[in-house]
Amino acid sequence: MPRLSERVEKIHTSPIRRVAGLLDEARERSDIISFGGGAPSLPPPQELLNEFSRLLRDDPLRSCGYTGTRGVPQLREAVAEDVKKYSEVDFDPNSEIILTTGATESIFSTVLCLVESGDEVIIMDPTYLGYREMIELARGQPVPLPVNVENGYQPDTEELKKVVSKKTKAVIVLSPDNPTGRIINEPFVKTLVDLAEDYDFWIISDDVYKHIIYEGKHVWISRYPGAKERTITVCSFSKEAGIPGLRLGYTLAPKHAIDSIEKMQQYSTLAPESLAQFALVRFLRENWKEAYMADTVLPSYVKRRDFMGKMIREQLPLTRTVGPAGAFYYFVDIRNYLAKTHQSEEAFAEQLLKETGVAVIPGRFFGQNGRGHVRMTFVSEPEDRIQLGVKKIATFFASR
Amino acid sequence: MPRLSERVEKIHTSPIRRVAGLLDEARERSDIISFGGGAPSLPPPQELLNEFSRLLRDDPLRSCGYTGTRGVPQLREAVAEDVKKYSEVDFDPNSEIILTTGATESIFSTVLCLVESGDEVIIMDPTYLGYREMIELARGQPVPLPVNVENGYQPDTEELKKVVSKKTKAVIVLSPDNPTGRIINEPFVKTLVDLAEDYDFWIISDDVYKHIIYEGKHVWISRYPGAKERTITVCSFSKEAGIPGLRLGYTLAPKHAIDSIEKMQQYSTLAPESLAQFALVRFLRENWKEAYMADTVLPSYVKRRDFMGKMIREQLPLTRTVGPAGAFYYFVDIRNYLAKTHQSEEAFAEQLLKETGVAVIPGRFFGQNGRGHVRMTFVSEPEDRIQLGVKKIATFFASR
Repeated sequence: MPRLSERVEKIHTSPIRRVAGLLDEARERSDIISFGGGAPSLPPPQELLNEFSRLLRDDPLRSCGYTGTRGVPQLREAVAEDVKKYSEVDFDPNSEIILTTGATESIFSTVLCLVESGDEVIIMDPTYLGYREMIELARGQPVPLPVNVENGYQPDTEELKKVVSKKTKAVIVLSPDNPTGRIINEPFVKTLVDLAEDYDFWIISDDVYKHIIYEGKHVWISRYPGAKERTITVCSFSKEAGIPGLRLGYTLAPKHAIDSIEKMQQYSTLAPESLAQFALVRFLRENWKEAYMADTVLPSYVKRRDFMGKMIREQLPLTRTVGPAGAFYYFVDIRNYLAKTHQSEEAFAEQLLKETGVAVIPGRFFGQNGRGHVRMTFVSEPEDRIQLGVKKIATFFASR
Repeated sequence: MPRLSERVEKIHTSPIRRVAGLLDEARERSDIISFGGGAPSLPPPQELLNEFSRLLRDDPLRSCGYTGTRGVPQLREAVAEDVKKYSEVDFDPNSEIILTTGATESIFSTVLCLVESGDEVIIMDPTYLGYREMIELARGQPVPLPVNVENGYQPDTEELKKVVSKKTKAVIVLSPDNPTGRIINEPFVKTLVDLAEDYDFWIISDDVYKHIIYEGKHVWISRYPGAKERTITVCSFSKEAGIPGLRLGYTLAPKHAIDSIEKMQQYSTLAPESLAQFALVRFLRENWKEAYMADTVLPSYVKRRDFMGKMIREQLPLTRTVGPAGAFYYFVDIRNYLAKTHQSEEAFAEQLLKETGVAVIPGRFFGQNGRGHVRMTFVSEPEDRIQLGVKKIATFFASR
């Protein structure tokens, strides 16, 4: 068989997706308690489902037909209004917003449009594991900025100054963060924006969890003076509308960057999904989102977050973690237990799944600094199964 | 503002998409007769629309939820059965098929997974304009293989031998072709497969129009001895199910290539659209596709094809073209008229739209060898408007 390209040989299969595959297989055989996933576990709101059906009935040709690469103007306008309401920042729907095939495409296109060989991109360690691979695909160099449970997973401004250089092309900030649930603090953002101006680099703000916040407020980086013209903000409807499978997100950026991202997306995916685009106009304009978040999503998630936190404290007292202010996960330092079992967290996670049917994600997948930790999703299982799962982990350690 | 990457500075905005933008604007102002588009003009079949509604009602969490990056197993199995029925080639649904965000993503991922700096990729001239830009994005070199109206737009095997070299990484064959409607002939495919073995290159077979055939039969390149292990076949549900906006296609390839494509798509789009995936299982298995093609799509398109062909012969007797055996387009050599007006086909197309409200696509967008031609889509307008549009073109030339 002829050779493949070097760029694809260099990247790695997503370990989360590999674990998802193992889970699918394991589920066939037995009863798995999954703290492993990263998807919302609630269906979309009924009004939105009704709107899908209405569009398919009243105008199937348009609902299932190509839209422009940038997405339909009426949804870009609704997004501009929605973003303005929360951020107080104006984005021009014609020139500063592009709809995308989910936030994954938003980040992928952004990285390919910014980063080339020789460029460095600073990412937190640990953070979302896809960034590293996307940067490698673009032939750039990921540069880790360590964060630790001791500092509540907040990056340190002095450490940031040490890793920034003339080679820095971008810094990626995910807030609320996956896997740690940390909301970025404002002094860090101020220093970051100052450095971005001094060194002329981009800020990529990944805001996919911006409405999944339990304490505090979302930090809109583009609000800071001097930030908007060098910030690319990535958002998703997956969590906000409960439609991860329909693959719809958006990117906010200066006109010149949006023009380039559109140009690339003409050849990478052509256009975003049509049915969800048309339906989400009313979802945003008629405040279905606010009601869905406030009445359905957040009450369900906050209960499970608190319950899993309590279970971890009671059952696994030697762990260290931070109560997540946002997102879906506990990132738990289990080094005190691993010291007893003489295992890496990866070997532990594998054995735990095999022996007890409880799935967690090894921390090193999110960066070198994630070693000795595991990520535990709290939105995928109901409370009785959260209790059972954490107890099984405690029993596993006690038996060693 | 910080710099963007070289790779994105190098590619061009799709002229078709730019024309689409002009058309949208022009349509606001007046009545446009569009021979410019490339989308099917019929809604999806009613059974499929009903299936969407059923899935949204019965299982909204699953219908709108993430699937695996490769797509759901049941649709991959249905695709394998469907492809086998037409091609007589076996593809393993677990290892040799991946579902994609439309054929655009299929080709984009394939090109990024194969092509790197220094590689040459042979494409027909003229052909679909996206290939050139995708190859440039991957930092490869597009190498044109000229085709002409005199040979019915069939590429010449001797010409192919001249452009093939050690640097050839892949040859892209689109059949039925856009813009010429040509179905590739079998002697060319035989030579191509022999050369691919001798020089160890890939064949990318773009089969998006495989069911839009009026005369002759689709040529499945992977059927030829020695071809399957070096052929990547790209297919789309856009035309076959009338759902271009839902962005669903698939790629057939050897296991090693599918593994790499999946690895990349984990980071470029994460997963294909879920609702269409679940719905298309019955579309394929219960023969809704055959009925839709035979009873609705082909009768409608063949009538319009014949009618536009008659109109061109009657009204524009100095043009030369080939009756398209497949796809949606006439590719018309208008050099005898342009010689009189002393215009490029691009200036002609622009003036035609401005003065008469008839939209056609300039041939040079599809390659150097397309100069002096225009592409005229025959599926977007009903017969009375096809007649009116062609007459307006004839009047335009007569008035010069």
